[in-house]
Amino acid sequence: MDKRNLTMLTDFYELTMANGYLENGMKDRIAYFDMFFRKVPDNGGFAIMAGLEQLLEYLKGLRFTEGDIDYLRAKGIFSEAFLTYLKGFRFTCDVWAVPEGTPIFPNEPVLTVRGPIIEAQFIETMVLLTINHQSLIATKANRIVRAARGRAVMEFGSRRAHGFDGAVYGARAAYIGGCIGTACTLADRDHDIPATGTMAHSWVQMFDSELDAFRAYARSYPENCTLLVDTYNVLQSGVPNAIKAFREEVLAKGFRPKGIRIDSGDITYLSKKARRMLDEAGFTDCRIVASNSLDEIIIRDLLSQGAAVDVFGVGERLITSRSEPVFGGVYKLVAVEDDGVITPKIKLSENVTKITNPGFKELWRLYDKESGKAMADVIGEKGEEIGQESTYELFDPEHTWKRKRLENFRAEKLLVKVVDGGTVVYESPGPTEIRQYCEKKVEELWDELKRFENPHAYYVDLSKRAWETKVRLLEEKGR
Amino acid sequence: MDKRNLTMLTDFYELTMANGYLENGMKDRIAYFDMFFRKVPDNGGFAIMAGLEQLLEYLKGLRFTEGDIDYLRAKGIFSEAFLTYLKGFRFTCDVWAVPEGTPIFPNEPVLTVRGPIIEAQFIETMVLLTINHQSLIATKANRIVRAARGRAVMEFGSRRAHGFDGAVYGARAAYIGGCIGTACTLADRDHDIPATGTMAHSWVQMFDSELDAFRAYARSYPENCTLLVDTYNVLQSGVPNAIKAFREEVLAKGFRPKGIRIDSGDITYLSKKARRMLDEAGFTDCRIVASNSLDEIIIRDLLSQGAAVDVFGVGERLITSRSEPVFGGVYKLVAVEDDGVITPKIKLSENVTKITNPGFKELWRLYDKESGKAMADVIGEKGEEIGQESTYELFDPEHTWKRKRLENFRAEKLLVKVVDGGTVVYESPGPTEIRQYCEKKVEELWDELKRFENPHAYYVDLSKRAWETKVRLLEEKGR
Repeated sequence: MDKRNLTMLTDFYELTMANGYLENGMKDRIAYFDMFFRKVPDNGGFAIMAGLEQLLEYLKGLRFTEGDIDYLRAKGIFSEAFLTYLKGFRFTCDVWAVPEGTPIFPNEPVLTVRGPIIEAQFIETMVLLTINHQSLIATKANRIVRAARGRAVMEFGSRRAHGFDGAVYGARAAYIGGCIGTACTLADRDHDIPATGTMAHSWVQMFDSELDAFRAYARSYPENCTLLVDTYNVLQSGVPNAIKAFREEVLAKGFRPKGIRIDSGDITYLSKKARRMLDEAGFTDCRIVASNSLDEIIIRDLLSQGAAVDVFGVGERLITSRSEPVFGGVYKLVAVEDDGVITPKIKLSENVTKITNPGFKELWRLYDKESGKAMADVIGEKGEEIGQESTYELFDPEHTWKRKRLENFRAEKLLVKVVDGGTVVYESPGPTEIRQYCEKKVEELWDELKRFENPHAYYVDLSKRAWETKVRLLEEKGR
Repeated sequence: MDKRNLTMLTDFYELTMANGYLENGMKDRIAYFDMFFRKVPDNGGFAIMAGLEQLLEYLKGLRFTEGDIDYLRAKGIFSEAFLTYLKGFRFTCDVWAVPEGTPIFPNEPVLTVRGPIIEAQFIETMVLLTINHQSLIATKANRIVRAARGRAVMEFGSRRAHGFDGAVYGARAAYIGGCIGTACTLADRDHDIPATGTMAHSWVQMFDSELDAFRAYARSYPENCTLLVDTYNVLQSGVPNAIKAFREEVLAKGFRPKGIRIDSGDITYLSKKARRMLDEAGFTDCRIVASNSLDEIIIRDLLSQGAAVDVFGVGERLITSRSEPVFGGVYKLVAVEDDGVITPKIKLSENVTKITNPGFKELWRLYDKESGKAMADVIGEKGEEIGQESTYELFDPEHTWKRKRLENFRAEKLLVKVVDGGTVVYESPGPTEIRQYCEKKVEELWDELKRFENPHAYYVDLSKRAWETKVRLLEEKGR
């Protein structure tokens, strides 16, 4: 497991502010921060929450080493009182979060932190870095998996990832989003993400002939033989040589061949032709794996043209979420607490959609009891209860005339307490369990949300109380 | 420093191939691999090489632990002979690489590995992952720095990076590409990339008024005071309050204010107005920092409209290279060696531009002696010498009729031996030295290469010998 101390992976301003809060006698003032995002990548209908396990690992290990203190002292801008404070620094906040694998929507709190301002502020960089990265990749993976319509998708992108963690945690997030596995061995060893792999073109080039290369590989892996057939010519040499090697080295030993892989050329054309050749040779169970700069749009096109592909290997466009590599989660102060009294805080903006939702909040998902489908999310205030009444009136916080009455519904709280007074109280499920949970929660969404173009906008509404608080603060701030 | 053992950060197929080579008696066969890329991100004129130091650190630590061996044994597909081999596995190859900070061009070898096939193949994933990531970010940073035309650019993107290493090594690469520093504290502590920071909007919100917040910050940092002025209204409250706090808490203590930061709104309009207000208050030396989803295109536009910005803080669009988050470096077998005889290998493709350049190669950059500018790169065969004659005829490898005669030039070898028989023999310069080297090498390029739209295509040509080898192999392979 990852035993790095990442305490110092923080924007430097978290430290200048922390020192300032201490000097201004504010270190114990209780603050509330929400993490939320404003826009689903690729204009999709929803995102997938991921990265919480790594965030909790970070919080468990949060402490400054002597080396860190010396480094900070050498900067010459921090007080000795602050450096002494950092020596004893422990995380004592409460944290609530939406579990990994959950579909999440713009402007709702997916994570809330409550505690002394220095601590609650300090973790901002890592909260965002961890959740933004893995949610980005899980969201992209889920799009690609949906495009594959039941066919398997493998994550193949380590070589184009943004750094080592980009590869490893990217593989984890891709698995949560629905991939069946990864090429990344370290992600398997450390995070139980199933890793597989066969051969590169260089294997074929290292032998005197393609057939020799295939025979050699099949001899080593008769039980698990997938051959890469596009080094020279897929249909003229690759597939015929693969069939020969399968017969000589796999069938002859009592096994069935696993597959062939096509990594270039027109995948639709080649896969259909290869399928026929394999079928005619009696290998109807031999799978065709396709790779080469795939994403959800290309996979959808391939399948709409009848490509005979069983497994998609997706690399750079998944591991970097190439079409939108930024997940724009933000971390905003929403309230302060003095002597037990919570005062909501609002951040204004010229841009109305950037005005924050103030206060210490609760988040519900409302389901239609008959269909089992999610109908809306409601952001309420902590302490409010929703779902006790048999009907609930939703109204749009931007267009308050838009109203909708729900009946026969049930309400589910989405935020789970994961840290209590600094102690992690949440046991992260394993990645396979998270992956299954994600699949189930995505099934609970209407198909209209799952379109790639112009998906339906899911309702994320404020409760009447939360809305009244927001309006009051907006009026107080004048403008 | 980073002491993780990343040996297992490898595509699983590197292991299946390795086992296969061992079983087929080929483990000691000498192979040559080149890393090169095919296209500059963002259709730019050149890329910047980066990541070599981290790659060499990885190669130094390359070994399998007992835990790794047990993990692999449990997979049930590897021979005991192979697992025993891995226990004693050491890297014994030779590696040549282009130094970090060097401008690099498509299709030329930026790194060459020579050694036993298992070892040379095994490191593929990490070679690509490390160099692709940092070269991507260094290249993007260099574009942004060029757009800023002498104004400072800071890297602010940790929170949107792809994982922890994406933040830290992204900050390193951005610095190499020309940024003056980062917000990432860990990048400073571990890699000497200067980190700075001031305050978030939450600082301002934590006080009863913006002025109180500014006063408190200025009291803590009178020597180094930059205030964030857009929490409420830049021109009506932010700048006037900043001027007040500067007078009361900075000037009064004998210091000069450092700056204000604007993080939203119309940067051109606001910065011009703010500049006038600061100047009128006597703070002509107070710098204006701008941030908020900036990139090279936006910065160019801001400056063309006369924005009064002195420092640009660039976040998500740099740390993810948002407009093109993939650096497509590949690692291809180019030769094998038997009893000292090197046989070049070629990888064919339906796509002519994907056909590899075969053989063990040398790379020169030819400079015009009079202007000092780089005129062309030439890929030759190892052992060839270029630059001994007073003239040199370049010809385009795709369009051989395109010829150009160089006179009064000098030739510089770009590939440096960095690993000799498995021992790292290259001492990486510090990041500041690499950054200066990068600046110097970019100055040696013609301005025509530095345009964002339709930059001139730099000459990357094959020597006559290298070209003849390629033609011969193409003819042998038929097609």
